[in-house]
Amino acid sequence: MPVNYRTPSPSQLFPVTGVRLGVAEAGIRKPDRRDLTLLSLAEGSRVAGVFTTNRFCAAPVQVCRRHLELGSDIRALVINTGVANAGTGEQGWQAAVHTCAATAHLLGIEDRQVLPFSTGVILEPLPVDRLVAGLPLCVADLQENHWHAAAHAIMTTDTVAKAASRRLNVSGRTVTITGISKGAGMIRPNMATMLGFIATDAGIATPLLQQLLWTAADASFNSITVDGDTSTNDSFLLIATGEAGVEFADAAAPGYAALCEAVVAVAVELAQAIIRDGEGASKFISIAVEEGRDRAECKRVGYAIAHSPLVKTAFFASDPNLGRILAAIGYAELDALDVGPVSVWLSSGQTEILVAERGGRAASYHEEDGAAIMQQAEIGIRVALGRGTASATVYTCDLTYDYVKINADYRS
Amino acid sequence: MPVNYRTPSPSQLFPVTGVRLGVAEAGIRKPDRRDLTLLSLAEGSRVAGVFTTNRFCAAPVQVCRRHLELGSDIRALVINTGVANAGTGEQGWQAAVHTCAATAHLLGIEDRQVLPFSTGVILEPLPVDRLVAGLPLCVADLQENHWHAAAHAIMTTDTVAKAASRRLNVSGRTVTITGISKGAGMIRPNMATMLGFIATDAGIATPLLQQLLWTAADASFNSITVDGDTSTNDSFLLIATGEAGVEFADAAAPGYAALCEAVVAVAVELAQAIIRDGEGASKFISIAVEEGRDRAECKRVGYAIAHSPLVKTAFFASDPNLGRILAAIGYAELDALDVGPVSVWLSSGQTEILVAERGGRAASYHEEDGAAIMQQAEIGIRVALGRGTASATVYTCDLTYDYVKINADYRS
Repeated sequence: MPVNYRTPSPSQLFPVTGVRLGVAEAGIRKPDRRDLTLLSLAEGSRVAGVFTTNRFCAAPVQVCRRHLELGSDIRALVINTGVANAGTGEQGWQAAVHTCAATAHLLGIEDRQVLPFSTGVILEPLPVDRLVAGLPLCVADLQENHWHAAAHAIMTTDTVAKAASRRLNVSGRTVTITGISKGAGMIRPNMATMLGFIATDAGIATPLLQQLLWTAADASFNSITVDGDTSTNDSFLLIATGEAGVEFADAAAPGYAALCEAVVAVAVELAQAIIRDGEGASKFISIAVEEGRDRAECKRVGYAIAHSPLVKTAFFASDPNLGRILAAIGYAELDALDVGPVSVWLSSGQTEILVAERGGRAASYHEEDGAAIMQQAEIGIRVALGRGTASATVYTCDLTYDYVKINADYRS
Repeated sequence: MPVNYRTPSPSQLFPVTGVRLGVAEAGIRKPDRRDLTLLSLAEGSRVAGVFTTNRFCAAPVQVCRRHLELGSDIRALVINTGVANAGTGEQGWQAAVHTCAATAHLLGIEDRQVLPFSTGVILEPLPVDRLVAGLPLCVADLQENHWHAAAHAIMTTDTVAKAASRRLNVSGRTVTITGISKGAGMIRPNMATMLGFIATDAGIATPLLQQLLWTAADASFNSITVDGDTSTNDSFLLIATGEAGVEFADAAAPGYAALCEAVVAVAVELAQAIIRDGEGASKFISIAVEEGRDRAECKRVGYAIAHSPLVKTAFFASDPNLGRILAAIGYAELDALDVGPVSVWLSSGQTEILVAERGGRAASYHEEDGAAIMQQAEIGIRVALGRGTASATVYTCDLTYDYVKINADYRS
């Protein structure tokens, strides 16, 4: 059960002109499950992507990188679940290349205009014949209003489909932004998440699109963690079809700031949805780190807290054993950190209490207040480092019996 | 239940001439529990220590560092469990200083000759009056053959006491090495473990002693992890009383190499005991990383694997989902790692099988062989990076329901 998250209904996901989606059952790993998704993009669409920094990155990630280097005039995305096609060596590369060729043949485009994505078990061969056999079914299913079905078809251990959508008025035109994501475990994206796809019908010049992708990734998929495991397949794609009749050539263009804000909001919503549906999660925890020297060190502190199994189990138990937060701040390896000025607050809703200051427990802190907040499903931790003006927020969930159960049972 | 570990019997722990130990019930946190330990060292003993790198290091760690800076002629160690005296600010410092003063007064030594150690809950004040009231009971209990009792009295969430002992002949004299340690959670020592104390009756000059301490720590307490949480209180002390009538002034002295080997062996045994008794552990996992450019990067790969909740839960489930090991190697942030030459083996006892090579699954690998090894309680992972001659071994345990249970329940 995700923490305060419900998949939007099909009617809440606005179609993006120029993007059609089709899904199919290809029987890649399990029967009776839609596991193959095709996104077909209108001519003239521009695409930007960021991918995992994992050196054992999957074959499809390597193919995506190469195709994007050859040009951003991408026309199709193919996504399979069940098998990650990672740790599969030369054979895996051939499978990804074959997937692109088969898709290009069906759609009458070039191989390099297809981006492949896989998610699932690592080290197992991709059954590429079954995948290719499923492609015509995806083509037959292509519709602009199939975002809801696609959000479901890309799931693995997710318990809910993740999607978000916005409409805004830019220069008198309606612009739409819709995105989907998947992921629940092996989540500590570094450059991107497991899989995230956001499309807009605004036109955005390629360098601008790439910049917007980075801004959105930094605030969303690169600010979340479930278990600290950076996946081999993380990919986050931003698509701009230009079909809305609004074109942005530079960042100063009227309306561009509002568009950016909406894209970031969609990305944050999708990233938070991954945490709300984190494997076994019973709590959603926001960790805001302030007064750091730079954003990187604020993130480092946020992740140290977010990755601590001791902090995570204390949240699961609703136990205000908050010294564990201080310990995590202390081992975050900040250069010459003086713990004297560090303060820590705990919050839920409108209530925020000071827990620690001057290297120790705050005189005003009462354990029963901490215990009351720890009972909530949505909890905020705020850390002030007292050594600068930078800040960053990291999102995570608690560590529960169910996390262990899910990951001990994953393949069975 | 620890994995293949049993506390040595009292008669298996050889007394170290010049070291007397006394324990008492001081009622620091829980009733009916021996929670205070005193080690009294003969005049002329030399002491070297390494401590946590956590910036929120505990007050006793700060006092230890200061006293060791003032000289290595330490005469007493005081160890309490129940309360860590960490995250306690100025009040905590005063409590640690007061502990030293009270001990010095009882033993007729100087305050600076006392080292204080605490372990337990962070952010709670140390009940220093109860501690001080317990000290005379410890003094009355001082005996050279009380290592077994001391090993028990320093436990927190440990399920078994940890101790190790060796005797060897050096230059015609019998030299003894005996040590104790504690720790089961918040274990990813960085410079030392939660608490580890090793004493020998050999005489070792101070710079040599410090060097031996580092060598021993690197191979033992600095090569283990349960949950990646570096504690606020990690301390590892090496004591040389010189009472055996053998004095080492430099590393080339006859017999010194054998002594070093024995000290390292005791340290490794104590460190491994912590992992075998890791919170909730059902498996003991050795991760040997070879062919790295330097020892640091080998350790980085070892820790990436050892910290991955996904790897740890797969071991708990006896599921050879070994792609998770590749993923961890891939995100260990090694400079320009080429995954092509990387090979991974899995072993138990005399059986070792090749799992992955050339970036993918080995052709000779059969899942049933992997599954058979995963059933065992003692498992080895061997990684060859194919880019150098350095190596390192890291020890860890699996992640189980019981880890979550223990840490969700710790304070209740």
